[in-house]
Amino acid sequence: MRKAGREFTIRDVARSAEVAVGTVSRVLNDHPSVTRDVRERVQRAITSLGYERNAVAQSMRSARTHMIACAIRDFDIPGYVSYVKEAERIFRAADYTFLLASTANDKAVELSLLRKFAQRRVDGVMMTISDESDPELIAAVEQAKMPLVLIDREMIQSVDRVAADHRSGARQATDYLLSLGHRRIALFVGDPHAHPSRSRIEGYGDAFRAAGLEPDPAMIRDHSLSNEFTFRETSALMQRPDPPTAIFVAGIDMLAGAMRALKAAGLAIGRDVSVVSGGDSDLAELSTPAITALQWDRAQMGRHAAQMLLDRVTGRTTEPPRCVRVPVSLVVRESCRPPQ
Amino acid sequence: MRKAGREFTIRDVARSAEVAVGTVSRVLNDHPSVTRDVRERVQRAITSLGYERNAVAQSMRSARTHMIACAIRDFDIPGYVSYVKEAERIFRAADYTFLLASTANDKAVELSLLRKFAQRRVDGVMMTISDESDPELIAAVEQAKMPLVLIDREMIQSVDRVAADHRSGARQATDYLLSLGHRRIALFVGDPHAHPSRSRIEGYGDAFRAAGLEPDPAMIRDHSLSNEFTFRETSALMQRPDPPTAIFVAGIDMLAGAMRALKAAGLAIGRDVSVVSGGDSDLAELSTPAITALQWDRAQMGRHAAQMLLDRVTGRTTEPPRCVRVPVSLVVRESCRPPQ
Repeated sequence: MRKAGREFTIRDVARSAEVAVGTVSRVLNDHPSVTRDVRERVQRAITSLGYERNAVAQSMRSARTHMIACAIRDFDIPGYVSYVKEAERIFRAADYTFLLASTANDKAVELSLLRKFAQRRVDGVMMTISDESDPELIAAVEQAKMPLVLIDREMIQSVDRVAADHRSGARQATDYLLSLGHRRIALFVGDPHAHPSRSRIEGYGDAFRAAGLEPDPAMIRDHSLSNEFTFRETSALMQRPDPPTAIFVAGIDMLAGAMRALKAAGLAIGRDVSVVSGGDSDLAELSTPAITALQWDRAQMGRHAAQMLLDRVTGRTTEPPRCVRVPVSLVVRESCRPPQ
Repeated sequence: MRKAGREFTIRDVARSAEVAVGTVSRVLNDHPSVTRDVRERVQRAITSLGYERNAVAQSMRSARTHMIACAIRDFDIPGYVSYVKEAERIFRAADYTFLLASTANDKAVELSLLRKFAQRRVDGVMMTISDESDPELIAAVEQAKMPLVLIDREMIQSVDRVAADHRSGARQATDYLLSLGHRRIALFVGDPHAHPSRSRIEGYGDAFRAAGLEPDPAMIRDHSLSNEFTFRETSALMQRPDPPTAIFVAGIDMLAGAMRALKAAGLAIGRDVSVVSGGDSDLAELSTPAITALQWDRAQMGRHAAQMLLDRVTGRTTEPPRCVRVPVSLVVRESCRPPQ
């Protein structure tokens, strides 16, 4: 008997449809194990009780939305695609909808997205943040109402993180160029307020210092990750009286900009200037000459992040947060020679 | 005076915070025009009334979520990135959160996403669908509870659509190869149940018939858009006793697979086999030789779709649904020569 004025609950729906409460929950969450027959029965019960599916779902105190949000700085970063696809594969297999958002590497967008995700009751979040030392961002990450994994970030130790070992990668690339005899090695990275760029600058410096040299700050461009920026700055650097003899395009989505600038200047990669790409891609692999590049297992990174997040979302782990670090290695191809 | 048992509404919050109802709404929707001061005042009112932000938002009958969902078949399609970025730019400027999902080109995922989007009350949807002639998909699209724009699809006329003119593009590419003297022209496309592949097969046939020829079905591969598939099938085709003298890799994300296969077989693009890419990319532009490719303004496509959707979401238009078609043109580079 239903008391007047009392709201319908998932129990009323279950009773009316003659199924278990868990079954109604599975229908509301679009669980694939529910047969079409049962799904329709539950839908009819919801309709006959005069309730929107929505309202019923919201009446469930513990309702999970089975949605995971992933926020990265842009949709077109070659390095993130394998990551994102593998993470999505894992969440889809576990019956979660995976939604991707772009932060534009902008703090205000990052904060706003975190609020949105909480409002819409996303079950878990994986994201990058533009500045790992910003107090407001740190607070928002630490106070997030849902489990959160940081992507390619290291510093905020109160949440799970997965990061590539960019310091070691940059060290290997710079060691290699130094060993060929290069000294004027241009370095392109993004904003040093986040782990990847900061670590690459460190690794680049490590290599110089290990060789008893000091890196020349005039050769470092750490302002932007855009191809337009890389195009412009490569063109400018190559017009100097003492142009670099090698370019380490460390940001993973900057190679095309550098290649366009060298092509426009009539400079041949390998012969006139050596190039190392900070991330591997079809472009690096299939170019002539093929471009020497840093590689790490991006799918593995996505797998680690998705598994860590899933373990938190499902409550399978309550262990302290951890950081998984993925190794980076140098694939030597044909784009580097000793300076002339 | 609040009656016992009555739920708090947005009016109660507005009164308590001494702001207009619209201001509370803007705070709940994270509108950027709200000052920090006002935001905090409204937050305090919500807290002091003992209500979660969430619950208040849900009490608004007409609450918009200010979320737009975009579902495409995969996250790593070079052709969709400019599209997606431009659409996102327009929605962000209009204060909407833009979320991207992947359908895996799978009907079940497409149907499930449409249900999820309705449940989570997304304000509008733009998406691709795997099969424009499938009754269940057609019904789901037509009965969607929110405005919906189809991306690069044409057939379902009850909703807004934006599509590239792939038929004309394929005709131009095939005309060009025929004019160089090629007759055995391999064609790689995806599933003909959707507009792009169907139209490309039509355009390819149009060109042959206009030249008084019949296309050879043995030269057409219309099964999958993956690079692995293209790699395998290119390798197989080139081992035939009568291999193709030209390859039209019409799917926009298949070029790398074909290039890998030709490289592995020791065949030089241009000299041994001519290649046209169905979509332009960094890889096509920066390869040696640079690859002749079809081009269309993807950003324009994203702009049209976003504007059409925004007009529906905001109620600015109630015009009948329409289809915007974007022209496709051939950019001739260095990858095609007469057959030897």
